[in-house]
Amino acid sequence: MNEHEILKAIRAKQPVCRTPRIVLGIGDDAAIYRPRSGEDLVFTTDMMHEGRHFLPDYPPDAVGWKALARSLSDLAAMGARPQFALLSLALGPGVGAEWVEGVAQGFASLAARSHTVLAGGDLSRAGHSCLEVMACGSVPKGCALRRDGARPGDRIFVSGRLGGGQLGLERPDMPGARQRHLRPQPRLLLGELLRTRGLVSSMMDLSDGLSIDLERLLLASGVAARLSGRLPRYPGATEQQALHGGDDYELLFTVGPGRSVPHSLAGTRLTHIGDVASGSPGQITFRGDALRAQGWDHFRDAS
Amino acid sequence: MNEHEILKAIRAKQPVCRTPRIVLGIGDDAAIYRPRSGEDLVFTTDMMHEGRHFLPDYPPDAVGWKALARSLSDLAAMGARPQFALLSLALGPGVGAEWVEGVAQGFASLAARSHTVLAGGDLSRAGHSCLEVMACGSVPKGCALRRDGARPGDRIFVSGRLGGGQLGLERPDMPGARQRHLRPQPRLLLGELLRTRGLVSSMMDLSDGLSIDLERLLLASGVAARLSGRLPRYPGATEQQALHGGDDYELLFTVGPGRSVPHSLAGTRLTHIGDVASGSPGQITFRGDALRAQGWDHFRDAS
Repeated sequence: MNEHEILKAIRAKQPVCRTPRIVLGIGDDAAIYRPRSGEDLVFTTDMMHEGRHFLPDYPPDAVGWKALARSLSDLAAMGARPQFALLSLALGPGVGAEWVEGVAQGFASLAARSHTVLAGGDLSRAGHSCLEVMACGSVPKGCALRRDGARPGDRIFVSGRLGGGQLGLERPDMPGARQRHLRPQPRLLLGELLRTRGLVSSMMDLSDGLSIDLERLLLASGVAARLSGRLPRYPGATEQQALHGGDDYELLFTVGPGRSVPHSLAGTRLTHIGDVASGSPGQITFRGDALRAQGWDHFRDAS
Repeated sequence: MNEHEILKAIRAKQPVCRTPRIVLGIGDDAAIYRPRSGEDLVFTTDMMHEGRHFLPDYPPDAVGWKALARSLSDLAAMGARPQFALLSLALGPGVGAEWVEGVAQGFASLAARSHTVLAGGDLSRAGHSCLEVMACGSVPKGCALRRDGARPGDRIFVSGRLGGGQLGLERPDMPGARQRHLRPQPRLLLGELLRTRGLVSSMMDLSDGLSIDLERLLLASGVAARLSGRLPRYPGATEQQALHGGDDYELLFTVGPGRSVPHSLAGTRLTHIGDVASGSPGQITFRGDALRAQGWDHFRDAS
């Protein structure tokens, strides 16, 4: 396959999705997006490396799906609606047409469901395969949900159930958990509903694990937290997996006092797992004991 | 270095550059940009892999500079003004604090000169080092310069001199050419001036080589071209390097009949190198003979 053929294969899989906002898509030096008046645009980018974030034997459509899902999950965490994405694809040695088509297919499936237009990207060869997705979403001006708004007295919630992503990584034989690991579902509708209902004082997505991600939210807000013992666990997941496992892509958010939170929203269960407290920023207590953040820090073991 | 320390090192190098358009920068799930009314936004992304686009012995500040320069050159080619960038950085084994600081320094130098705000990104470890820069620029609504507007009878121009990027790759002992290879200068001011003067019918940047990039412009416009023998060559560069060498980051553009083009603009020489012709789309003749596009196609030698 040459560059032209690869591009053609990727484009052929994409849903027909015309919007006057994408003035110019794939094929020029850059893509052109025409903003609406009164909107803020939200930008995120995520890289996935073979051998690090996925393995050569993963189904290629899962690799394409997950590359987009990781970025869309960040948009969900801001309460944003996806607009478009750029995909950079580096092909490792031994990767051919079938793999590219599978990746394009997986990317396109999620793009179609989430109304995300593939507007451009970059193609190259490298020592190992690598994908990078930049996604852009929109919110009404001033309405994006951030990490830095949690205040003592707020309650802490998570969507869905935790630990399934990690369980699926460790146990390829458990189909449900494996699907969660391979094809995570970004909580886009939930993120938008939480924004429009005005319930949320801070929000982020859980990609690296509850303990490390919660620590990040607390540090950004300058507060501490007490977690109760009641974590909603994915069936079969251990408490350690629920506390520290990555790849769940659920939403973690805080709600101010006196606001009522439904038990579920957008078909997703919402669980009160603890409370924001004053104290040393970033400190977490779990059943009364200090909890050390142990999620996925890419550099924890590095020099 | 852990993730927090790496982020801190990168942020410390960035110029203080406050703009009300970047509502939220580094540190949340996503960055927030507030568009002006009446502007189109232009998006481009470029990946650089160790061993492919740079070597381990390259000065790290050149690697950071070039990663941003490649994307800014695409913005220049649209006639856009840079607004912000996202940087994804994957660190290979053996890469430490000094390399990260050097990359951040090089990126920051060009960011300061081009008024580009580093608004976010992604950090990871991988089997080899890799950088990806997504850059966003703005143009007045409907004014971006595209590849697809060349018409028979238009004249073809290039900025600057060609072949220096390739010469600098092949000859590390030639300081001037080496600088062009390591620290290319995106033609941002020239791109904006060409847009505001309304001279240009199509434009792109030269990153992979004149012959292959011109072929792409011609294919997008559905036209052919005749090149004269007069290519502006970088001192010491061969005609082959000027025709097919990559990494020049000059602008290639076409101008409609009857419009006068200055000999230089923004301190950069502009040279009439040929003319757009009707004929088989993408076909190039050079001194009367058919010219085969031979620039840098990442996949030319791949299966």
